Amino acid sequence: MLTTPELDRVVRTALTEDLGLGGDLTTRLTVPAEATGSAYIVSRQDGVLSGDDAAAATFTAVDPSLQIEWAKHAGDKLAADDVVATVRGSARSVLTAERTALNLLGHLTGIASRTSVFVGLVDGTKARIVDTRKTTPGLRELEKRAVLDGGGTNHRFGLYDAILVKDNHIGLGGGLLPVLERLAAGVGHLVRVEIEVDTIEQLDTVLAFDAERITQGRAPVVHAVLLDNMEAWQVATGITHVRRHPAPLIVEVSGGVNEETVQELARAGADAISIGALTHSVTCHDFGLDLLA
Amino acid sequence: MLTTPELDRVVRTALTEDLGLGGDLTTRLTVPAEATGSAYIVSRQDGVLSGDDAAAATFTAVDPSLQIEWAKHAGDKLAADDVVATVRGSARSVLTAERTALNLLGHLTGIASRTSVFVGLVDGTKARIVDTRKTTPGLRELEKRAVLDGGGTNHRFGLYDAILVKDNHIGLGGGLLPVLERLAAGVGHLVRVEIEVDTIEQLDTVLAFDAERITQGRAPVVHAVLLDNMEAWQVATGITHVRRHPAPLIVEVSGGVNEETVQELARAGADAISIGALTHSVTCHDFGLDLLA
Amino acid sequence: MLTTPELDRVVRTALTEDLGLGGDLTTRLTVPAEATGSAYIVSRQDGVLSGDDAAAATFTAVDPSLQIEWAKHAGDKLAADDVVATVRGSARSVLTAERTALNLLGHLTGIASRTSVFVGLVDGTKARIVDTRKTTPGLRELEKRAVLDGGGTNHRFGLYDAILVKDNHIGLGGGLLPVLERLAAGVGHLVRVEIEVDTIEQLDTVLAFDAERITQGRAPVVHAVLLDNMEAWQVATGITHVRRHPAPLIVEVSGGVNEETVQELARAGADAISIGALTHSVTCHDFGLDLLA
Amino acid sequence: MLTTPELDRVVRTALTEDLGLGGDLTTRLTVPAEATGSAYIVSRQDGVLSGDDAAAATFTAVDPSLQIEWAKHAGDKLAADDVVATVRGSARSVLTAERTALNLLGHLTGIASRTSVFVGLVDGTKARIVDTRKTTPGLRELEKRAVLDGGGTNHRFGLYDAILVKDNHIGLGGGLLPVLERLAAGVGHLVRVEIEVDTIEQLDTVLAFDAERITQGRAPVVHAVLLDNMEAWQVATGITHVRRHPAPLIVEVSGGVNEETVQELARAGADAISIGALTHSVTCHDFGLDLLA
Amino acid sequence: MLTTPELDRVVRTALTEDLGLGGDLTTRLTVPAEATGSAYIVSRQDGVLSGDDAAAATFTAVDPSLQIEWAKHAGDKLAADDVVATVRGSARSVLTAERTALNLLGHLTGIASRTSVFVGLVDGTKARIVDTRKTTPGLRELEKRAVLDGGGTNHRFGLYDAILVKDNHIGLGGGLLPVLERLAAGVGHLVRVEIEVDTIEQLDTVLAFDAERITQGRAPVVHAVLLDNMEAWQVATGITHVRRHPAPLIVEVSGGVNEETVQELARAGADAISIGALTHSVTCHDFGLDLLA
Amino acid sequence: MLTTPELDRVVRTALTEDLGLGGDLTTRLTVPAEATGSAYIVSRQDGVLSGDDAAAATFTAVDPSLQIEWAKHAGDKLAADDVVATVRGSARSVLTAERTALNLLGHLTGIASRTSVFVGLVDGTKARIVDTRKTTPGLRELEKRAVLDGGGTNHRFGLYDAILVKDNHIGLGGGLLPVLERLAAGVGHLVRVEIEVDTIEQLDTVLAFDAERITQGRAPVVHAVLLDNMEAWQVATGITHVRRHPAPLIVEVSGGVNEETVQELARAGADAISIGALTHSVTCHDFGLDLLA
Repeated sequence: MLTTPELDRVVRTALTEDLGLGGDLTTRLTVPAEATGSAYIVSRQDGVLSGDDAAAATFTAVDPSLQIEWAKHAGDKLAADDVVATVRGSARSVLTAERTALNLLGHLTGIASRTSVFVGLVDGTKARIVDTRKTTPGLRELEKRAVLDGGGTNHRFGLYDAILVKDNHIGLGGGLLPVLERLAAGVGHLVRVEIEVDTIEQLDTVLAFDAERITQGRAPVVHAVLLDNMEAWQVATGITHVRRHPAPLIVEVSGGVNEETVQELARAGADAISIGALTHSVTCHDFGLDLLA
Repeated sequence: MLTTPELDRVVRTALTEDLGLGGDLTTRLTVPAEATGSAYIVSRQDGVLSGDDAAAATFTAVDPSLQIEWAKHAGDKLAADDVVATVRGSARSVLTAERTALNLLGHLTGIASRTSVFVGLVDGTKARIVDTRKTTPGLRELEKRAVLDGGGTNHRFGLYDAILVKDNHIGLGGGLLPVLERLAAGVGHLVRVEIEVDTIEQLDTVLAFDAERITQGRAPVVHAVLLDNMEAWQVATGITHVRRHPAPLIVEVSGGVNEETVQELARAGADAISIGALTHSVTCHDFGLDLLA
Repeated sequence: MLTTPELDRVVRTALTEDLGLGGDLTTRLTVPAEATGSAYIVSRQDGVLSGDDAAAATFTAVDPSLQIEWAKHAGDKLAADDVVATVRGSARSVLTAERTALNLLGHLTGIASRTSVFVGLVDGTKARIVDTRKTTPGLRELEKRAVLDGGGTNHRFGLYDAILVKDNHIGLGGGLLPVLERLAAGVGHLVRVEIEVDTIEQLDTVLAFDAERITQGRAPVVHAVLLDNMEAWQVATGITHVRRHPAPLIVEVSGGVNEETVQELARAGADAISIGALTHSVTCHDFGLDLLA
Repeated sequence: MLTTPELDRVVRTALTEDLGLGGDLTTRLTVPAEATGSAYIVSRQDGVLSGDDAAAATFTAVDPSLQIEWAKHAGDKLAADDVVATVRGSARSVLTAERTALNLLGHLTGIASRTSVFVGLVDGTKARIVDTRKTTPGLRELEKRAVLDGGGTNHRFGLYDAILVKDNHIGLGGGLLPVLERLAAGVGHLVRVEIEVDTIEQLDTVLAFDAERITQGRAPVVHAVLLDNMEAWQVATGITHVRRHPAPLIVEVSGGVNEETVQELARAGADAISIGALTHSVTCHDFGLDLLA
Repeated sequence: MLTTPELDRVVRTALTEDLGLGGDLTTRLTVPAEATGSAYIVSRQDGVLSGDDAAAATFTAVDPSLQIEWAKHAGDKLAADDVVATVRGSARSVLTAERTALNLLGHLTGIASRTSVFVGLVDGTKARIVDTRKTTPGLRELEKRAVLDGGGTNHRFGLYDAILVKDNHIGLGGGLLPVLERLAAGVGHLVRVEIEVDTIEQLDTVLAFDAERITQGRAPVVHAVLLDNMEAWQVATGITHVRRHPAPLIVEVSGGVNEETVQELARAGADAISIGALTHSVTCHDFGLDLLA
Repeated sequence: MLTTPELDRVVRTALTEDLGLGGDLTTRLTVPAEATGSAYIVSRQDGVLSGDDAAAATFTAVDPSLQIEWAKHAGDKLAADDVVATVRGSARSVLTAERTALNLLGHLTGIASRTSVFVGLVDGTKARIVDTRKTTPGLRELEKRAVLDGGGTNHRFGLYDAILVKDNHIGLGGGLLPVLERLAAGVGHLVRVEIEVDTIEQLDTVLAFDAERITQGRAPVVHAVLLDNMEAWQVATGITHVRRHPAPLIVEVSGGVNEETVQELARAGADAISIGALTHSVTCHDFGLDLLA
């Protein structure tokens, strides 16, 4: 299991938070230095695993001599009482790393698990479940990978890798048309453009702008539209308009999507349904660690 | 509003995640460089504010010339539609910082708000609501402060600043008595000791150990007991035993506490009720940013 | 002039290289501490300015009390003997920062200047001059901005923000068709795909793949093709094929492009001409610093 | 092949630039995880190798399980089509590391190669080819080693390890004599002093100053003189004056030295010829990577 | 021998100070690259070893292939001429690491040795020798461990892990009673409280405050008192008062304690004697390194 | 008062050690947030000030709004009860920064003070007091400046900025003559060479080597000799031999020099006397901080 510089940074930061300068006072005073044991990481509920590499990197950072075997891997389904991994070696090392490893594992598995619930709910439609930039500060890379582990798809990683024009950009940019003109002139050839629209009228303006470009033999500017905070019937209407457009266009839907509303939106024909809550409101997956001498 | 090295680290990490090397492509292409505006950060639900310093540091890190005025401060109650802060200056700067600032503000306010719900539920009892080490990796300092903003109390910060003996320590340390002996011999004079017990029998062993020390004119070793995963009636029994002890002892209760069970545990006489979910399963508080030219 | 975390990192690293622990021995021993002066940064040749922010950040990092006025700004044309900036304040501080500031300014202006030569050569065609990932390790953000200052356009920033399939990917991926299938299934909706082709046959395979998708009402997978190491007549042939394609497709040309060959490639109809030498083989722009007491 | 903290810093920075948070999207989508291969790094032109350790560290940082064998080592001559190294292991890992490794290898080999051209041109004279502080920000240690690999010699590393008095120091220090007096009084006993002179008159002043000290039985202050921007006949005159001096003195020549002028300067008797262009204007050495499954 | 992130940071910083960018010029020029040898680290005086892990990490950081065998371990007594460790491998690597390794070893062994002298002086009493926050900036963790190696005990690690109220807090907090009230209301249940008192009157105020609380059935606030700058007879008086208190209370003594005064203070009945000089005024332990080819 | 990146690093590291994540618990609980005061930093003994910039940077890092006025500056003499500086502003901020600021100030002033004692003892001779590489890990730059503040002179900063050949280099390099030959061939023209000799015979070998080079019209290789662990009469003998040498040569003396032996060595004619204890065995200078509301 390889680490990345980013994973390494997260694990070191988390361990530093927990160990400070003094280290694990409790373990040092209560567990003999020479004690060894086998620790079983057990899932206490159903879900989908993510963060095995982060947990492994945590144990290894505390003590490179710990032996870790994974019975489950990222993306695997978990049931209650499943043993996910076994960690063998110094009992002190295991106990010192335990909380940090489980914090990472629980957080990331929580994300993968909820993602997989949404993915299951839209099964049979073409809709993908996608994440957003509403990630926990400092954990974006790991959280985006957890979304993949849960069967979801990643939206852009940050402000730097794609263009998503929102209402504030339109407001401060002088309206939709000047903004579209500026994009047409300035976008790099490997950068995709998505426009957020709040109404069908705005959508039609975007479609008309590119339809005329296509008529003139010029490449369209917009690759995706984001229908924000619309109900399913509005989404269906929007998609009807998009389907009449001379070029393919991806339709993303977002705005307070939850387990109750996601199916209707998927059936309305959305290509992608983005859900901030996947990463901004995470319920930790419950794992335990049982350590036997 | 002062920053700390830790706050500074979190803000820089989060901005780096969102800006990468290329920065905010969308804003640069759609909003004129000279555009200025006033941005209103608005709460979209009830809660208790935390993270104002983190949000402020984010805007300032992106552009030190932004002017920020806070109408609400850490610990203040929020209602839907409350304007929390106004940010004035370069529109590009505001939009570039927006998501990172709101991610921090929403996460930390989510923690303070849920903490304050628990604090309200135990009002009228002596029970304090306390956090745990089940924090989001990389955000412990900020999350612990959010718990304070919500009216809660901080448990230990890490493995380094207090001793909390859990079942695995007892198991690997050869049982409760040898562990207590080791603690008696080795604990620093400014380090407090708490013992987690799963049964009333274990509790009685701890109490007996220290009672004998006190009889012999020696200082007791244990300052607090943690009754783990007990129901309210067991807690009440435990507290009866503790009250008969010759020295004052703090009783903490933990284990899957939620909004339904917290009151009963408080009324059973717990001094402290620790809740991992305060920080391990955070629901982001919903904030919006409205930007007017 | 604002700094970014990345600019800050570059400037600190460069200053640390030059100052070590002992600092500027020469200046400390030869120039009185109280000496002040005005330093004129003078261009010694024609070109286009870039790196003014990096140079400014260097002087400020050495001594925040230095006053810097810029007569020229990023993107401005320079002629020999043009005064670019004036730095006023402590003579010691100016001399200590001089070499690091000029190293940054000369390197980045060298890039902007050469870019602007290429941009001038393709004037009147629709071809854009674009950079590559062949940047100097540690300076990518600043070099990419220097390309913009010279009138060029940025290609992708790294492996993370767009897909560019090269011969090795095709070879190891089992050939063009399996690779295109995998891309069709897995690409995120805000990620653009470019395919490098070495022959017209490969190009036709790519075009046929997407033409069939479009016929079936599915979105095309490929947004751009990179004609690698082709001569102008081959490029012209390729573009003829691309123009017959049912969807717009960007044509990038690359491979050992220089001042002699760029015009012919542009006239052959390329949308983008990428040139590694813009950043991998930089001739430092010659600047001097004249310091008057 | 050992790494240093500085090499480690450069490699991590460069990889972070290229991988960002998302990593190598292309490889992940097109190349199977289990694919392995042998990659041959091939020189496409003549030159002298440098940066093998940096390239090796890059591959290892991406994947410690990659096996690298070097057929050539730092300082070895390269001809077109020479295989420099073979990298075996995960195809994904090789492709992900390729560009960063080749950027480092090409940049540093470019420096070594040009250095060796200069060294060859002055063969048969006593002149050494030396570098300057005009290095690429962030790469000074690696570039200085590349100069050694090419047969050159290092000048001082920074402002901190030797004294080189230039015209601005003399101007702000009140003239040559006060500056020499200050140096005589304050230089540490392990710090060498070099004075840049623009005219033979300045040179004579320096020589007279130290000659008088020697007459008085005091140690001379100056160990080297730098004849700046002089033509070969002026250099020869200067050296005649230096040879009459009662103590040995190193004569360095600098200022716009190139392949046309270097021989004449060496024959004029210079001990050292410093060339900023060795590191400030680098032409990347062309390497390719051929990957076979 | 495991390293911690903190130890790693210290070793890297120290090596960077000594190696800079240029590395070990002397060794590179005088010792052949292929030379190997055995280096014996020899103690030149009596003492108690500390810092073996730091020295080991230094050698390993310079060259992971060095083989280190320790004849003595942290906490072991040293006599003059004792061989402490043998380092085998590349002679260049050993010489490059030597000074940094010995600086760490000498500093930390100096602390352990002086601590053990104090511990010996109070042998037969119940007094523990404890350190303070007067540590060398950047070395606190290692210095605190050296105190443990010498048989001492650690006081709090920093401002964050325990409460120690000093005269300035009392002065600015409005006097002892308001400060005690505030502590009673706000201290976390795992944070211990110590109060520094300068007079017996202050001590009595503290004792009375808690005695009343105990009478009322409330937990006492103060766990330890620090008698600052008192002579032995005053300490004895103070302890008499403390012994009459209804709860056990630790008595710490501090203020200019030295080898002459420590015994009398211990005999007066102090539980802990804290000595700033253990870490703020360290005499380096003398080690030599003998290297045989 | 300007900071350097190195000073900044030291201050941040030290503050992080003391503040951890939780910050100053005591001050927060005992001193009202709005309390302000004037703090007087008072010297409690005689000495020479150093570290004023480090102390200032500490207060400013904790709270940029603190106002600091210095009555004494680096290099100034201090007497007991001298007020060194006044710090005005938030009482909490002053108390939080106090210990870290005084730790730095006391350590560095301790070095400057002891240096100035040695400098005073050799007054009237030509001997300079110089430091060594036996510095406290992480504090080399600041300690070297403290030596300057005390009137001493800096030896080389590290392994990278000068050559000092010791017995181990000679032993592993095959003896003095091969080592001298290698140095003659390879030393950069701005690097000085010093040779440590243990006997007069070794000294004579070095002198003979260079005398012959001078006779042949070649530059000498050695600029300084270090007479290691010699008594004063041996030093005097050595200096007699050096004075007969045809080129000036600096004579450094080292090895267990203390306040008793330094004068005799200076009078024996040494140019430089290096003393490891200046930085490896520091007695902290005693400062107090009195805070008035």
